Amino acid sequence: MLTGLSEDWTTGGTQDNWAPYDIVGHLIHGELTDWIPRARIILEQGENRTFVPFDRLAQFELSKGKSLSELLDDFEVNRDESLDTLRSWNLTEEQLTLKGIHPEFGDVSLSELIASWVAHDLTHIRQITQVMAKKYTDAVGPWREYLSILE
Amino acid sequence: MLTGLSEDWTTGGTQDNWAPYDIVGHLIHGELTDWIPRARIILEQGENRTFVPFDRLAQFELSKGKSLSELLDDFEVNRDESLDTLRSWNLTEEQLTLKGIHPEFGDVSLSELIASWVAHDLTHIRQITQVMAKKYTDAVGPWREYLSILE
Repeated sequence: MLTGLSEDWTTGGTQDNWAPYDIVGHLIHGELTDWIPRARIILEQGENRTFVPFDRLAQFELSKGKSLSELLDDFEVNRDESLDTLRSWNLTEEQLTLKGIHPEFGDVSLSELIASWVAHDLTHIRQITQVMAKKYTDAVGPWREYLSILE
Repeated sequence: MLTGLSEDWTTGGTQDNWAPYDIVGHLIHGELTDWIPRARIILEQGENRTFVPFDRLAQFELSKGKSLSELLDDFEVNRDESLDTLRSWNLTEEQLTLKGIHPEFGDVSLSELIASWVAHDLTHIRQITQVMAKKYTDAVGPWREYLSILE
């Protein structure tokens, strides 16, 4: 979806208005510090099951100096590793009900964590479509009326 | 994004609430009857420059009997052909200002048509993310609060 696009489409974001570049960095940081690490905390059922808070702006530091193409490659590697790990666990129904402690929500189950991982991906794909479509708000002329994404 | 997903994720839509399956069919119909055919009407600058109205529900007939995998293959072929055609025109700035007549909007330029083609893609990718995420509304538990896509 983003491969090969010019920087006009993919960069120029701010902390309050992320560009696709920032979103990919955010997804990478999630692979490394959020989803699988939190699943491990739940599966280990150790004494401290409270997740480390996730820094949702970390990418503004961590992506520095990287091209979008590099970030996309990194994300592919990191996501593949996450999915390999997830598959290797062969989770049982019982394990999916195990709980960890979210720093804000309190008790959350492993199945809720994994479902949120999926919904989180979809949220950010949606965000990418919205950010990119907005650039054509004027260019589409009268079609704007039909394109609810531009509202 | 859709390849290899189970039918739970991709089918079961209605005319008022499209599933990814229906959306892919709609995109195929757009390639065949909307974007490039309308661009041709504009470029030819013939006597009748009014576009044929686009049937946005045609896929509910035309996709019948096809699997999503077949539709995705069809779409890839049709889209590639559309892009080959578009590139072969080597459009000039002047051509992009040529106009056709939209059955509802009246005068529209070729550049507006092409920009709308892009924004239309993005609209439907967004729709796919929303339709799929909704299936996990309950499964994400307390994370629902953070996932604006589920609102």
